[in-house]
Amino acid sequence: MKKDLSSDALEPVAGNGLLHRRLFLTQGAAVLGSGVALMTARNASAAPLEVPATMKTPGVPASGYGERSRFESKVQRITNGAPPTPGTGGSRTPLEYLEGIITPNPLHFERHHNGVPDIDPEQHRVLIHGLVERPLVFSLDALSRYPLVSRIQFLECSGNSAGMNTPEPAQQGAGGLHGLVSCANWTGVPLSILLQEAGVKPEGKWLLAEGADAAGMSRSVPLAKAYDDAILALYQNGERIRPSNGYPVRLFLPGYEGNMNVKWLRRIKITAEPTMTKDETSKYTDLLPNGRAEMFTFPMGVKSVITSPSGTQKMQGAGLYQISGVAWSGTGKIRRVDVSADRGKTWAQAKLDEPVLSKAIARFRLPWRWDGSPSVLMSRATDEAGNVQPTRAKLMADRGPNYRYHYNAIQSWNVTAAGEIGNVYV
Amino acid sequence: MKKDLSSDALEPVAGNGLLHRRLFLTQGAAVLGSGVALMTARNASAAPLEVPATMKTPGVPASGYGERSRFESKVQRITNGAPPTPGTGGSRTPLEYLEGIITPNPLHFERHHNGVPDIDPEQHRVLIHGLVERPLVFSLDALSRYPLVSRIQFLECSGNSAGMNTPEPAQQGAGGLHGLVSCANWTGVPLSILLQEAGVKPEGKWLLAEGADAAGMSRSVPLAKAYDDAILALYQNGERIRPSNGYPVRLFLPGYEGNMNVKWLRRIKITAEPTMTKDETSKYTDLLPNGRAEMFTFPMGVKSVITSPSGTQKMQGAGLYQISGVAWSGTGKIRRVDVSADRGKTWAQAKLDEPVLSKAIARFRLPWRWDGSPSVLMSRATDEAGNVQPTRAKLMADRGPNYRYHYNAIQSWNVTAAGEIGNVYV
Repeated sequence: MKKDLSSDALEPVAGNGLLHRRLFLTQGAAVLGSGVALMTARNASAAPLEVPATMKTPGVPASGYGERSRFESKVQRITNGAPPTPGTGGSRTPLEYLEGIITPNPLHFERHHNGVPDIDPEQHRVLIHGLVERPLVFSLDALSRYPLVSRIQFLECSGNSAGMNTPEPAQQGAGGLHGLVSCANWTGVPLSILLQEAGVKPEGKWLLAEGADAAGMSRSVPLAKAYDDAILALYQNGERIRPSNGYPVRLFLPGYEGNMNVKWLRRIKITAEPTMTKDETSKYTDLLPNGRAEMFTFPMGVKSVITSPSGTQKMQGAGLYQISGVAWSGTGKIRRVDVSADRGKTWAQAKLDEPVLSKAIARFRLPWRWDGSPSVLMSRATDEAGNVQPTRAKLMADRGPNYRYHYNAIQSWNVTAAGEIGNVYV
Repeated sequence: MKKDLSSDALEPVAGNGLLHRRLFLTQGAAVLGSGVALMTARNASAAPLEVPATMKTPGVPASGYGERSRFESKVQRITNGAPPTPGTGGSRTPLEYLEGIITPNPLHFERHHNGVPDIDPEQHRVLIHGLVERPLVFSLDALSRYPLVSRIQFLECSGNSAGMNTPEPAQQGAGGLHGLVSCANWTGVPLSILLQEAGVKPEGKWLLAEGADAAGMSRSVPLAKAYDDAILALYQNGERIRPSNGYPVRLFLPGYEGNMNVKWLRRIKITAEPTMTKDETSKYTDLLPNGRAEMFTFPMGVKSVITSPSGTQKMQGAGLYQISGVAWSGTGKIRRVDVSADRGKTWAQAKLDEPVLSKAIARFRLPWRWDGSPSVLMSRATDEAGNVQPTRAKLMADRGPNYRYHYNAIQSWNVTAAGEIGNVYV
C-alpha cells in the first residue's frame, strides 16, 4: 500500500513554492517516504515526558450543558464598535480561528436592525395570509408536527466584505473583513408544504416575510424560491436555533442574501407584487456607477477567502505551511478553488475536503513551502455553474466605488519577509 | 411543476398507517394537492395577530460568544446519578430534543474515567516513541502546521445502550437509553503523516495511546487503522475541541468504539503487540455465554433509533406525524432504514436526508398517520456492507445476558391508546 512519492510530492506545482494537493491525500496510501522531515516546527528530542499535574489529581465531573476551555476565551465574534443604537449592528464569525465547514452556534455571525428579541415559544405564532384560500396560524408545536428536512448550508449577509470598498485596505483579519458568513446544519419545515395547505391563489407570485423584532424586519421573496428549497428553520446544528439567529423560527432561503432570511418570523403574506418595504428600498440595493440601483439581487456570488495564513496572523519562519480557507456560492456547489502565492501570476488547484455540498461552505487546502521572501497569497473559487470569483480591480471597475452589497472579489494577503500578514489590494 | 399526488401520497405503504416517504420529497414539485389539510394541529383562524411586545422595545445587542434561549434550558445532557467517584461517569446526548445530523458541542456525550482535566495548550506535548526511527515531541503549534483534514463522523461509546440488557425495559427516553452517541465535524492531523515522519520500524504493528487524565486512559490500536483514517483531532464543529472531548488534542478513530479515541492525548508508543492495558482487559471486552470474552472488537455495529416519537414523549392525539430518527454504522455509510408501526410485521423504507456520509449519523424520516390505537414503532438500519441491525431477541440469544458492549439491537417504542410512549422489548 505504501508508495514512496516523497520527491514528487515536494516538487512545486506553481510559482513561489505551492506544492501539489496530493501531499494532503494521505488516506489509505502514504505519500511521503519514511522519515521525510515534513515540518520545521517539530522537536526531535525524545526525553521522557514529565507526568503532568492533570494525571495526579482527578478532573471535574460531567455536566449538563458543556463549556469550552478557559484557554479559548480569546475566540470571540467580532462585534461592531459603537453603533448609533445598541441593537443596530452585528458580530462577525472569527474565520481565522475556525476549521472545517461547520460554524459552532455561539460563533455564528449575527446582524440585527433593532436588537435580539426575547421570544417565548409558547406564545409565538406564524400567520400565513394574503392571497390564499385558507389563512392559517401555526404554533411552534404545530410546525414541529410537519415533515422536516435537514441540510448543511451557508448564510451570508449581503453586506459582508463591504469594507473592501475603501480606498486603502483595512488592516483586519479574515473574520473582521469577511466574517458575516457562517455555515450550519439547518432543519425546518419546507415552506412549500405550508403554502399548499393554505392554498395560494393564482395571482399570488410573491410573499412578504415579517419578523417579530423591534425593527419589524420585512422582505419580499418570489414564490418560486418558496416552492424550491425555502424552509421555516427550527433547528441549527441539532439544537433549537439561537435567539441571535431567529429563535424560535426563521425563514431560511438557501444561497440568498442573509437579510431575506427573516428572523423571528411571525407573518408570511402572499402578494401579487413585491411589497417594496423600507428594508428593500432604502437598503439592500446595489448602487451602480450610472446612479441607478439594482434591486432584488438575491443569490450570493461565488466567493472564497484564505483563513490560514491570513491578516493579523504571523508566519513562524520559512518552511512548509498549510494554506487553508473557505469557499461558497449561492448558486450551488463549489467546483474548484485555485490558489496563488505569487500575486496571481500562477495558480495551483487546492484540495477540497469531503463533503462538498450545494450552497454550503467548502474547505480548501494546499501545501506551501514558504522560502521567507515577500509573497502575496490569493484564492479564486469556481462554482458548478461556472461562475468564477472576480478580481477586486474588475469588480470595482464594473460596479463602482459605492458598491457595498454582494462584494465577492478575490482576497489578497500580503506576506512580508518578517512574516507579517496584511490585507492588500492587487 | 405541480403534480397533484394527494390521494396517492396519503395511501398507507405498510401496516398501521405508515405512508410513503415521497410525502417528504417536496423539493421542486408539490406532492399535495392544493388545500389538502395535512395536519390536525393547525389553527385555521385568521384573526390579525396581535403585535407582540418584542416589536415595541429594542432587543439586546450582539455579543462575542452567543448563548441559547433561556426557554431551552430544559435541554441538558443526561448525567449519571451518583457515581462512586465524581469524575467517573459521563453524560448522554438528549437525542429526543435534537434534529439533523450534527450534535452541538455543549450536548456532545462525554464519558470519563477520572474526570475532565484542565490542560494548558501551551504546556501540552504529544510524544511519539517506541519502535520508531526518530522519537518526536509535538507542541500544539507544531501539530497545527501539519496538513489537516475535516470530516463529519459519529462517535459512540462502546457501552452505549448497555442498559437494554436488563430483564425489564428501563423507562427512559431515546437519549437516556442510547445517548452515548454524537456526531460532529472533526478536524485534525492524519496520524499517518506523523508516523511517516517518525519512521515506524518494520516490527511495529500496534500503537499504545495514552491520555493526560488522572485515569491515565490507555488503549492499543492496530497500526492499520492509524494508516487508514485516524487523526489527531484539534477541532470539533469548527472550534477547538471541548475539554470533555479531549482538549487540546484527542485520537479520533472513525467508526471505532469511543473509548479507543483517547482524549487529552499525550503519548503514542509504537509496539509489536497490543499492550494489554487495564482499560482493555478489565473492561471493553465482550463476555460471551460460554464464559470466554472477545477482545479488540473495534468497529461499532450498524444501529438506529427513532427519536420522535420516542420514550417519555406523548402523542398529541390521532393524526399525521413525522417519524424521525438517527442511524449510523462503524463500517461505512447507511444504505437504508426501514420503519415498522406494527411490531415488526410490515416495514416501509424511510427517507434519508442528504448528505449520507461514511461513519456519520444519518437522519431518517417517514410519515405516519396514527389512528389512535396501541402501536409499536421500530427502526432497522442496513449499512453499505449489508450489515443489518438485529432484533433484541436475536442479539441476546447470540451474546447472552451479560452482553453490555456493542449493543446494537432494534429499539421498539410502545404507543398506548392514551398516547403514552415507552420502552418495550419485542
